[in-house]
Amino acid sequence: MAFWKLTIEYEGTEFAGWQLQPQARTVQGELERALSIVARESVRVQGAGRTDAGVHALGQVASVEASADLGELWYPLNQVLPDDVAVPAIERAPDGFHARFDAVRRHYRYRLHRGPTALERRTCLNVHPFPAAEPMRRAGRKLLGTHDFASFATLAEPGENTECIVEALDVVERGPFLDVTVTANRFLRKMVRTVVGTLLEVGQGKRPPEWVEEVLAARDRRAAGPVIAPRGLCLVAVDYPTEQESGGRR
Amino acid sequence: MAFWKLTIEYEGTEFAGWQLQPQARTVQGELERALSIVARESVRVQGAGRTDAGVHALGQVASVEASADLGELWYPLNQVLPDDVAVPAIERAPDGFHARFDAVRRHYRYRLHRGPTALERRTCLNVHPFPAAEPMRRAGRKLLGTHDFASFATLAEPGENTECIVEALDVVERGPFLDVTVTANRFLRKMVRTVVGTLLEVGQGKRPPEWVEEVLAARDRRAAGPVIAPRGLCLVAVDYPTEQESGGRR
Repeated sequence: MAFWKLTIEYEGTEFAGWQLQPQARTVQGELERALSIVARESVRVQGAGRTDAGVHALGQVASVEASADLGELWYPLNQVLPDDVAVPAIERAPDGFHARFDAVRRHYRYRLHRGPTALERRTCLNVHPFPAAEPMRRAGRKLLGTHDFASFATLAEPGENTECIVEALDVVERGPFLDVTVTANRFLRKMVRTVVGTLLEVGQGKRPPEWVEEVLAARDRRAAGPVIAPRGLCLVAVDYPTEQESGGRR
Repeated sequence: MAFWKLTIEYEGTEFAGWQLQPQARTVQGELERALSIVARESVRVQGAGRTDAGVHALGQVASVEASADLGELWYPLNQVLPDDVAVPAIERAPDGFHARFDAVRRHYRYRLHRGPTALERRTCLNVHPFPAAEPMRRAGRKLLGTHDFASFATLAEPGENTECIVEALDVVERGPFLDVTVTANRFLRKMVRTVVGTLLEVGQGKRPPEWVEEVLAARDRRAAGPVIAPRGLCLVAVDYPTEQESGGRR
């Protein structure tokens, strides 16, 4: 048996999210089905992030333990997968590699679109009025660093650890797009979509940038803005420690 | 009655092309239907380029003559259109404006993708082996300028004018994409897809860059490479003379 690291791209539109569910079409389910066919053994995968229904990924990562040489199965795997899931890369991973527990950092992007769009409609949200980037950026900066993000978490359980380290948060205009990019060590349930829904209130002038500090301090979900629609969200990449950083742990 | 210039974006996947057909779903048909509903009059549109089935547009242009003030109908028009067509802009145009006859230049892009992709699958072609950009670029340069492009035209009729002025042709790598961008005063039937199919033979090492000169000189469709699949093609923009260039013609 060997461990493998898979990089996975998917369009979330027709999926009930990443995580396996008995009655619904999920990315994990399709991936395990396709891997089991090409590897000729029953295969389980562990994803780095459990993206919700409708959320996309350019660089989701999954760990797999298998007897088959998955590196040799890249081409048939992509042939067997449905066309809304692709596996751009398969690499050997250190023994015991776990995509979720070993991840040190996740990068998400939420994409808004100025005006109507046909080609980008599945991966952007078109909002009226279109928000101003600068106040959103100013508000976003207040979330940088180590904070209790309970106000931005859906269904956080009592006693659950809701502390996250937001390492980067930017609001970038690129042609007709306005991208909110967020990097953190971990994310709580619906956290990015609640952060973006909150920043949007600021960008649309309904609240001042300083309001975000109040929301953060409240540690209460009811203090934040609404959860924005999933279609604009994409898990862009997941980082793992380099061999040096992991201190030879492997 | 006033003349209007519409900028149109569409995903060609589910369309039998731009041009109106009685039994098929076309972009022109959907646009005329939606415009007639919101303008409450029967409306005809003229497109700058008759894109084929499966070809996309970011900046198709259409001219429309209507009594209604279309500038006021931008929002409802986009609400009535199906979600694979959008009209990002509606502007007043000079009297007699004709999107096809007045166009001075069209910009197309053909997009190849390195490896499997889920998010970009509808607008890129994934080819094996992936071509080298540099020989394609060298070959493409041989098509610049004024030439008879009969070798790159499908179904050119005897006596048809097959001379085009290719003003720009570049092959650009952007991350996993390889884009072939072509700008010309006019394009013949399936010309961009035949040019890209021909350059691909060069990029995959089946032919040297100089072969393209032979293809051009032959003035015979059988001399060129195959027509590449429509899904990677996009009509990016259409140019019209500025008021100065048109010499006050309007």
